[in-house]
Amino acid sequence: MTPHADPAKGAAVKAADRAHVFHSWSAQELIDPLAVAGAEGAHFWDYEGNRYLDFTSGLVYTNIGYQHPKVVTAVQEQAGRLATFAPAFAIDVRSEAARLIAERTPGDLDKIFFTNGGAEAVENAARMARVHTGRPKILSAYRSYHGATAAAINLTGDPRRWASDNGSAGVVRFWAPFLYRSPFYAKTEEQECARALRHLEDTIAYEGPQSIAAIILETIPGTAGIMVPPPGYLPGVREICDRYGIVLVLDEVMAGFGRTGTWFAAEHFDVVPDLLTFAKGVNSGYVPLGGVAISGEIADTFARRPYPGGLTYSGHPLACAAAVATIDVMAEEGVVEHAARIGRDVLGPGLRDLADRHPSVGEVRGLGAFWALELVRDPDTREPLVPYNASGEANAPMTAFATACKKSGLWPFINMNRTHVVPACNISETEAKDGLTLLDEALTVADAHL
Amino acid sequence: MTPHADPAKGAAVKAADRAHVFHSWSAQELIDPLAVAGAEGAHFWDYEGNRYLDFTSGLVYTNIGYQHPKVVTAVQEQAGRLATFAPAFAIDVRSEAARLIAERTPGDLDKIFFTNGGAEAVENAARMARVHTGRPKILSAYRSYHGATAAAINLTGDPRRWASDNGSAGVVRFWAPFLYRSPFYAKTEEQECARALRHLEDTIAYEGPQSIAAIILETIPGTAGIMVPPPGYLPGVREICDRYGIVLVLDEVMAGFGRTGTWFAAEHFDVVPDLLTFAKGVNSGYVPLGGVAISGEIADTFARRPYPGGLTYSGHPLACAAAVATIDVMAEEGVVEHAARIGRDVLGPGLRDLADRHPSVGEVRGLGAFWALELVRDPDTREPLVPYNASGEANAPMTAFATACKKSGLWPFINMNRTHVVPACNISETEAKDGLTLLDEALTVADAHL
Repeated sequence: MTPHADPAKGAAVKAADRAHVFHSWSAQELIDPLAVAGAEGAHFWDYEGNRYLDFTSGLVYTNIGYQHPKVVTAVQEQAGRLATFAPAFAIDVRSEAARLIAERTPGDLDKIFFTNGGAEAVENAARMARVHTGRPKILSAYRSYHGATAAAINLTGDPRRWASDNGSAGVVRFWAPFLYRSPFYAKTEEQECARALRHLEDTIAYEGPQSIAAIILETIPGTAGIMVPPPGYLPGVREICDRYGIVLVLDEVMAGFGRTGTWFAAEHFDVVPDLLTFAKGVNSGYVPLGGVAISGEIADTFARRPYPGGLTYSGHPLACAAAVATIDVMAEEGVVEHAARIGRDVLGPGLRDLADRHPSVGEVRGLGAFWALELVRDPDTREPLVPYNASGEANAPMTAFATACKKSGLWPFINMNRTHVVPACNISETEAKDGLTLLDEALTVADAHL
Repeated sequence: MTPHADPAKGAAVKAADRAHVFHSWSAQELIDPLAVAGAEGAHFWDYEGNRYLDFTSGLVYTNIGYQHPKVVTAVQEQAGRLATFAPAFAIDVRSEAARLIAERTPGDLDKIFFTNGGAEAVENAARMARVHTGRPKILSAYRSYHGATAAAINLTGDPRRWASDNGSAGVVRFWAPFLYRSPFYAKTEEQECARALRHLEDTIAYEGPQSIAAIILETIPGTAGIMVPPPGYLPGVREICDRYGIVLVLDEVMAGFGRTGTWFAAEHFDVVPDLLTFAKGVNSGYVPLGGVAISGEIADTFARRPYPGGLTYSGHPLACAAAVATIDVMAEEGVVEHAARIGRDVLGPGLRDLADRHPSVGEVRGLGAFWALELVRDPDTREPLVPYNASGEANAPMTAFATACKKSGLWPFINMNRTHVVPACNISETEAKDGLTLLDEALTVADAHL
């Protein structure tokens, strides 16, 4: 489909939005939301006739791109058959979605508790861990995002927590490995890994292991910067959890369902968590859906004792039908393998080439369709292009970079001093290369700030 | 559509459910979920060929019944046009849903923040109130339900909170009016109202008004027992809030969108809250959706200061398209007026007649398509038919009553010692009368326990 310009309609949509829609994470009068008319695959377009290559996948969730015809058809058919039904019943697509997910999650994570999205998945994983262990505390990492409901935002390690944090009873934060900005003064990945594990174990010792219900980590942190952990880190965390009877929760809301070139990112590290949270890619967000995959041991805790949590739309039939179709499409079309290949052969080499030529690119890291570019003022000191949590004038260099991308037809993902390259997992080689070319141009704007 | 028996398919659906689906609020091995094959209007059917009249509307959310053709078509069309798009953009159906909701909410509640469901709506209302006032505490009522995420469950006044409550920092609970089991030893509605307001005001005085951000109340409490407040209570609470600069949050997740015979239950009391939470009936749950309607004053707080909350699927296009179609259908077909009429002319008189003839019915209360029957062992002492939060053998009388309903083809809503009559708001007069006849038979089972 090609964009069809209709500026009058766009103005009306924008006016109604400004009159009545209250937007996430925003000062309502300081935003200027683009009115979007349509989308397909890795592209969307506005009412002015501008077409954009989406290097964000929405908020890193349309893993199969926009409007995949097979998933659209499946949603339409389910809407005609049984759009909704309450959670206490057995429903064919609910059972089938749970089975398809359980078959793909690692190890014995064979029971699926469905939620509406990632935040509720994290809320319920935290509750399961606390009730299962009878312990109060959960350890979470700085440089993380786990959602915006009360428990999830308190587990989050970024500035979005601050306004909702009144002391965070029950949450203890620690530092995870990140060699480029090492909290441990490490020089090598091996050193960073060993020191990060030592830091975690020391923190546990001083908190009291018997008080700790769970450790939650994004398998590969997403919005916080796509810091792929060193190979030994997650196995080390798993071993620590086993030693102290602590539940390991891996949050794969962003990293799961093909994003990293495997069904789940945990596979890269050969680690099986006790609980795994998911959302986004499970059905590419065509219908809101999230959930928790639960180990046999934790499921047993709630075999004869009621699980104290629930929600009206748990296992929503329309959302589950979209999940069944999305997983089928991903399997049939080899989307997961494609993401691995596009990362290895196109995005990885292409982004490293940009880093070589643009001094503002301090580091490139990632895999699959999951990449971050760290933009800096000085490659030696690694001073970020903008300060932590900057806004207004202080954030001008990143705003200028974003504007340059958009003008060229590339919609970029921006967080702090980083741009992430997180397109649809089935983006074509041509589209990926086109995006790299547009990024090349925009990075000259960032270079000017050195 | 008539049920088509297919027991083999039913057994397969059930087996896959038992293998992989983890159910809300349940001991997983002690439940036996009915496999449901289809639903239409106020009915659903299983794979054995049994058809049920649904007196629950799912979990009190399918206000226009199952599979309304106009809403199904709208969902199908939106799926084909643009199933999903990220929240930071202006999207036609997102704007239109916000406009239609804002037009119907009372007073100046003209900005709509969309969530995936009711719990997230309450989470965000609590956050808005705390940031807007700069105060920490929220007052909520015993005998209430507000959702199962951390902030929402801590505001909840029923036993589902207990497992997640470690002392509830920031929440203070009080008693709302309920003449049948008066916390204030009142003999008349006027007395109950005056004493409940006095209790609330005393609680505020001793907590310190300057520490209280908000009072949250279900306009008419739902699962907790459909206790319609005395006429003066909510206006009195509004006046107290105004006096102390406290935000009034009315939770209409269950009572909103036609359930009580008005668009919002607040209309019955001529009260305008500062924040109003909704979900369920907004689109009859065909796609997960909830939200907060926000007053001008609170919206202004976030005009030039970022609102510290958000979610990936805020204003999900498919969910918004279902809301637009549902609101249109409700307006075109007079669903709200129908709910008022069916309550006044059929359900109210019919249920009061049952109460006259069945000594186990201690009280009938409600309006519209929103009714509760209080089942008792003794009409004089008002001893509940089963103890508070009973399970197993202690709950046997309610289990027997539920079983009798189901055997007769009526699917009942049960909570503690109550059965609620909460069918689709557009249930026909014939269906409503059929349901009353089936309830009449089942109540003889309850009568046997006196």
